[in-house]
Amino acid sequence: MSTDARPTTTPIPTPTAPAPDILRCAYMELVVTDLAASRAFYVDLLGLIVTEEDENAIYLRTMEEFIHHNLVLRQGPVAAVAAFSYRVRTPEDVDRAEAWYQELGCRTERRTDGFVKGIGDSVRVEDPLGFPYEFFFEVEHVERLAWRYDLYGAGALVRLDHFNQVTPDVPRACRYMEDLGFRITEDISDSDGVEYAAWMRRKPTVHDTAMTGGNGPRMHHVAFATHEKHNIIYICDKMGALRMSDRIERGPGRHGVSNAFYLYILDPDGHRVEIYTQDYYTGDPDNPVVRWDVHDNQRRDWWGNPVVPSWYTEASLVLDLDGNAKPVVDREDPSEMDVTIGADGFSYTRAGDEGGSYHGEAAKGFKLGNQL
Amino acid sequence: MSTDARPTTTPIPTPTAPAPDILRCAYMELVVTDLAASRAFYVDLLGLIVTEEDENAIYLRTMEEFIHHNLVLRQGPVAAVAAFSYRVRTPEDVDRAEAWYQELGCRTERRTDGFVKGIGDSVRVEDPLGFPYEFFFEVEHVERLAWRYDLYGAGALVRLDHFNQVTPDVPRACRYMEDLGFRITEDISDSDGVEYAAWMRRKPTVHDTAMTGGNGPRMHHVAFATHEKHNIIYICDKMGALRMSDRIERGPGRHGVSNAFYLYILDPDGHRVEIYTQDYYTGDPDNPVVRWDVHDNQRRDWWGNPVVPSWYTEASLVLDLDGNAKPVVDREDPSEMDVTIGADGFSYTRAGDEGGSYHGEAAKGFKLGNQL
Amino acid sequence: MSTDARPTTTPIPTPTAPAPDILRCAYMELVVTDLAASRAFYVDLLGLIVTEEDENAIYLRTMEEFIHHNLVLRQGPVAAVAAFSYRVRTPEDVDRAEAWYQELGCRTERRTDGFVKGIGDSVRVEDPLGFPYEFFFEVEHVERLAWRYDLYGAGALVRLDHFNQVTPDVPRACRYMEDLGFRITEDISDSDGVEYAAWMRRKPTVHDTAMTGGNGPRMHHVAFATHEKHNIIYICDKMGALRMSDRIERGPGRHGVSNAFYLYILDPDGHRVEIYTQDYYTGDPDNPVVRWDVHDNQRRDWWGNPVVPSWYTEASLVLDLDGNAKPVVDREDPSEMDVTIGADGFSYTRAGDEGGSYHGEAAKGFKLGNQL
Amino acid sequence: MSTDARPTTTPIPTPTAPAPDILRCAYMELVVTDLAASRAFYVDLLGLIVTEEDENAIYLRTMEEFIHHNLVLRQGPVAAVAAFSYRVRTPEDVDRAEAWYQELGCRTERRTDGFVKGIGDSVRVEDPLGFPYEFFFEVEHVERLAWRYDLYGAGALVRLDHFNQVTPDVPRACRYMEDLGFRITEDISDSDGVEYAAWMRRKPTVHDTAMTGGNGPRMHHVAFATHEKHNIIYICDKMGALRMSDRIERGPGRHGVSNAFYLYILDPDGHRVEIYTQDYYTGDPDNPVVRWDVHDNQRRDWWGNPVVPSWYTEASLVLDLDGNAKPVVDREDPSEMDVTIGADGFSYTRAGDEGGSYHGEAAKGFKLGNQL
Repeated sequence: MSTDARPTTTPIPTPTAPAPDILRCAYMELVVTDLAASRAFYVDLLGLIVTEEDENAIYLRTMEEFIHHNLVLRQGPVAAVAAFSYRVRTPEDVDRAEAWYQELGCRTERRTDGFVKGIGDSVRVEDPLGFPYEFFFEVEHVERLAWRYDLYGAGALVRLDHFNQVTPDVPRACRYMEDLGFRITEDISDSDGVEYAAWMRRKPTVHDTAMTGGNGPRMHHVAFATHEKHNIIYICDKMGALRMSDRIERGPGRHGVSNAFYLYILDPDGHRVEIYTQDYYTGDPDNPVVRWDVHDNQRRDWWGNPVVPSWYTEASLVLDLDGNAKPVVDREDPSEMDVTIGADGFSYTRAGDEGGSYHGEAAKGFKLGNQL
Repeated sequence: MSTDARPTTTPIPTPTAPAPDILRCAYMELVVTDLAASRAFYVDLLGLIVTEEDENAIYLRTMEEFIHHNLVLRQGPVAAVAAFSYRVRTPEDVDRAEAWYQELGCRTERRTDGFVKGIGDSVRVEDPLGFPYEFFFEVEHVERLAWRYDLYGAGALVRLDHFNQVTPDVPRACRYMEDLGFRITEDISDSDGVEYAAWMRRKPTVHDTAMTGGNGPRMHHVAFATHEKHNIIYICDKMGALRMSDRIERGPGRHGVSNAFYLYILDPDGHRVEIYTQDYYTGDPDNPVVRWDVHDNQRRDWWGNPVVPSWYTEASLVLDLDGNAKPVVDREDPSEMDVTIGADGFSYTRAGDEGGSYHGEAAKGFKLGNQL
Repeated sequence: MSTDARPTTTPIPTPTAPAPDILRCAYMELVVTDLAASRAFYVDLLGLIVTEEDENAIYLRTMEEFIHHNLVLRQGPVAAVAAFSYRVRTPEDVDRAEAWYQELGCRTERRTDGFVKGIGDSVRVEDPLGFPYEFFFEVEHVERLAWRYDLYGAGALVRLDHFNQVTPDVPRACRYMEDLGFRITEDISDSDGVEYAAWMRRKPTVHDTAMTGGNGPRMHHVAFATHEKHNIIYICDKMGALRMSDRIERGPGRHGVSNAFYLYILDPDGHRVEIYTQDYYTGDPDNPVVRWDVHDNQRRDWWGNPVVPSWYTEASLVLDLDGNAKPVVDREDPSEMDVTIGADGFSYTRAGDEGGSYHGEAAKGFKLGNQL
Repeated sequence: MSTDARPTTTPIPTPTAPAPDILRCAYMELVVTDLAASRAFYVDLLGLIVTEEDENAIYLRTMEEFIHHNLVLRQGPVAAVAAFSYRVRTPEDVDRAEAWYQELGCRTERRTDGFVKGIGDSVRVEDPLGFPYEFFFEVEHVERLAWRYDLYGAGALVRLDHFNQVTPDVPRACRYMEDLGFRITEDISDSDGVEYAAWMRRKPTVHDTAMTGGNGPRMHHVAFATHEKHNIIYICDKMGALRMSDRIERGPGRHGVSNAFYLYILDPDGHRVEIYTQDYYTGDPDNPVVRWDVHDNQRRDWWGNPVVPSWYTEASLVLDLDGNAKPVVDREDPSEMDVTIGADGFSYTRAGDEGGSYHGEAAKGFKLGNQL
């Protein structure tokens, strides 16, 4: 199989068993410490649709979804992620997932009635990177509300778009994910061969998940899509009106990577949610991989607006199959924050721009304005 | 006459002569040091329409304008503002402006053929705050291109919206501007009675000009309007594509003051240009003045995103009627930057929010993320 | 005084008394036959804000309004308009309005406590064209909800924009309205000098009201503004979701006249409501009047989409000061519908386009497609 | 294999050979009679990017495309479609396509150097419905211009979205397309089992092509996607400014089927082009098929705006592999136009709505306004 992953010296073995045929990221199960506060955030603020709920859990979906949910909020003692869940093409692909991870020596757990409401036969695994992954096919169908404009708010979320995971060794993660059938679409690296992040997909968008280099395993964010950019701006406006602007962490802005318009906000537990719109089709097997220089100051924000440090450093814990938080392992490679911001790092607006520029700015054109 | 200005201990006398009836801010004359570079910025990047040009000057207008120009770029040795120009209701209002300023002891210069192309009988004055103000009625009509969608770019500028001036003593400036017939619509102050900025209008929008407290007289920015928010986002996207993102100084964002969507960018000389859309009607005489607390972290950006220091400190020189730069006088009152950012300042997201908050954040909820 | 009105052979005398200084169209009082059904339309569907209500009347305002209301719905036996109400600059302008109409011999009624809640000293008149006009200054201030994005729906109405009146003799109406202080901004006529419609303003937009040639006095529509075009599209989408698409009468589309984006919908009584956004500034005294040829097929819809006949023929009755419906007088001049649609009329896409065209279409390029 | 197609009494046999693995609709080859006029339409008006051109042909692509072209304009004597071209997953899938159609007895032609520039090894077939289909894998990569906002116009086309074909027997076409690997996503039928149209996809959008019941084989339209709805509105505005509004055939509007926002315009030869945005994800194998009643007046336009008759009756000829126009065979089933518009047809806004309605309208609520 061809690979677009960077070389790794610590590869996870490729199973001989066939990988499951994964359709798409389908839902995340989030443990939250105050279910009412989280309901206010995801339902009242963001307008996700409640498929069903009880005193311990709320099942939420987007406007265009026809499966039972895209997000489960479950009351628990420690804020964390209980599952990154993918839908597979057939019931047999659940068997394949189970066998594939068992060959890797991973702990797996199969439940024919599912781990959460609305989902049938599923397998959960502790994957080689330490993440709780789930695979299922059987799911309860619910009404696709795409035409129910009477239910749309001005910032309506229409699809689950992707997950984003923090892991110390990005090339290692990429090779494993390629074995699992994912394709890399974009990445960030430097001229020394250090890889800082990579995006990978099953459905033909820029990603179903991304691997962000850092201390992990942790969950960086979960992303929902809107139809248009003004929907995202409205969410900001509404958060201002509710005097929740301190929960807007970064953005809105235009990503370099993915070319999408984005916003990052923080839920009551600090789980990061991205609102995202308008990336591009990636479904051809020879889809060109877009490779960004870590020092390109437009890679993370096309307009050069600074990435706040918390965005690099903060992330959510993930749980093992017993519900305990996985220990976090430090990244050994250089951190993207260190090599791009502040005393040790540098960035440029124009490659090769040194000792003066078109605009009479200092060499390298790094926009320092937003920092004290 | 009723006043909405804060008390001032250093008032400029109110003339006995009647004030001119000012319609609106009409154009700015900018001195630029590299006319070709400025043309690339205002015509190629921003898409302003060239009404006419020669080797020394370019006359530009917006898509919905029917007078000769909204901006004059004139080649000169020092980047500065040569005129803030207002249109008055009748030819006689030019006489009134001249008499009004002469009663104040200001230097005035009358040219029946105008100071620039396209404009007829005009008076220019060095106003009591040190700004070069112009008043005219006679003007050459040109085609209003509002219906010429074949000429619209994706970020089309449709109107000149306002000026913004930096002056040390805001209450003094406000009383003078009220005497000139302006109405205050919004301001920023603190509980000690210090005023940091005020917005004032003739046409029924939030402003034709604003007075920003700081070392002055200087020009803070000139603002053009788009129809919709996506037009402003496109300008950012285009600046990214042209690798000019380091000329995006602040934004895009939603203002608290004015409720408009905004972007600040810098031209090749560092003249600041705002792109602005969707404030509200203010034309009733009892239009409520909106007064913001300087510590309200949503006053300048409704989403709480930080104001970059350069936005507070940098501004353009202005010229006297001989074309020499006016000396800059320091502000004596506290600066908005000092009282809101960093070690000496504070801001809050929720008034009265102390020692803990809804979101479990630190007291006062100031969003520090964007600072190193 | 200069005039932009077409010549009239049946002028209404110009009073010697000074005209009141009118600020803007402020509210319409609508009589509706089923208050609950109307509430569902204006509040549940369109999202207007209820300032107050009782069993007989509902007072509604837009998001950016600070006066008590922009629309009064009053239960009554016959669907009609009880008042077109304008705000004037000072309390004395109410006196001026009363005197001005009395000099014209019109019936007037003064109520120092107002005709409806929230409004103080007012005068209502039966104007020379037969319309119930009201003028007031005193009004209760309410919260301007411009910043309350938590209350905005996806199709939020932010301002009352204008009225539109049907009257048989447009030039006569125009001269009278000019005497009252209005300025004409655009009109539709033909080469024989017949005038079909004219737009006129006090605030510096394209209109506060328009005179549409037809059997009258009747009310053609009342218009509310949104911020952006997608807000209008959303209203259509929501009406589709509610299976109310048969209440979408015309549009959405782009007007030729005014250059605004528009939609016409019908309330439960058949009162026509326009949703409107993005016309242009008209506040200069020499603002160019835009004159459209009635045969220009882009005058009413810039995209050449057909005007439905009901839009030409249907309109709401208006009441006299006793609450009785005013008799409707037929228009004697040609009707716009007759001269542009069907067997007797013609329209062109390109002026002078005859006997073939660039696109190989029939002469005159009239788009007949939408008609059986 | 499961089927979502309606029963057919005239099935095309299912080949025993495996079907090719089709990725997506990739490009259309259009024969035009005036290449310069077509260039003005597709390049100057619509802003498609010229990959290359010579005196006989122009190769065009969208902003987000990385393969050589999405549209070929070729000068020829008769306006027609020379190829509906699909990209397949591997080079071997071209072999599979060839074998699959040969087993069906279809004429095929293989060219290892491709039929047009930029494309390598390809097979063209005259398919069982009479359409010229092409399959290829090898293609020249070109720059994906997604980030080149300096090249985006206000109405930028970012992707080829789908084809639409006219064929007399829709159920027969559906079964054949299912054999070829397509999945049905939506259809229009009546209670008698007559099928009027069906949408089918390979990539996970609502369609790569649709089968519209009518006299065929003919090409109904080719569709390009924009990012947002305002991009489509801009195209209308620009056509108005260029006095080409008579080339706007239908829309803009919201489809019921697909839930997308749409516009239909006509090129200089009458080839119909759709501009389309914002349908939904369909990639799951159990994606619910949406079935519309032909009498539902919101199926074609969610706002109930009428479908112009030309949209039902007009379509482009298609060519056989010798370049001769295929004869057109009449549809025998009832036509959608006949059963829904005019004397013989009926439509409803609300199912079951008879003898009066919520709005006091006539039975069935059909919006007749737009018809004379």
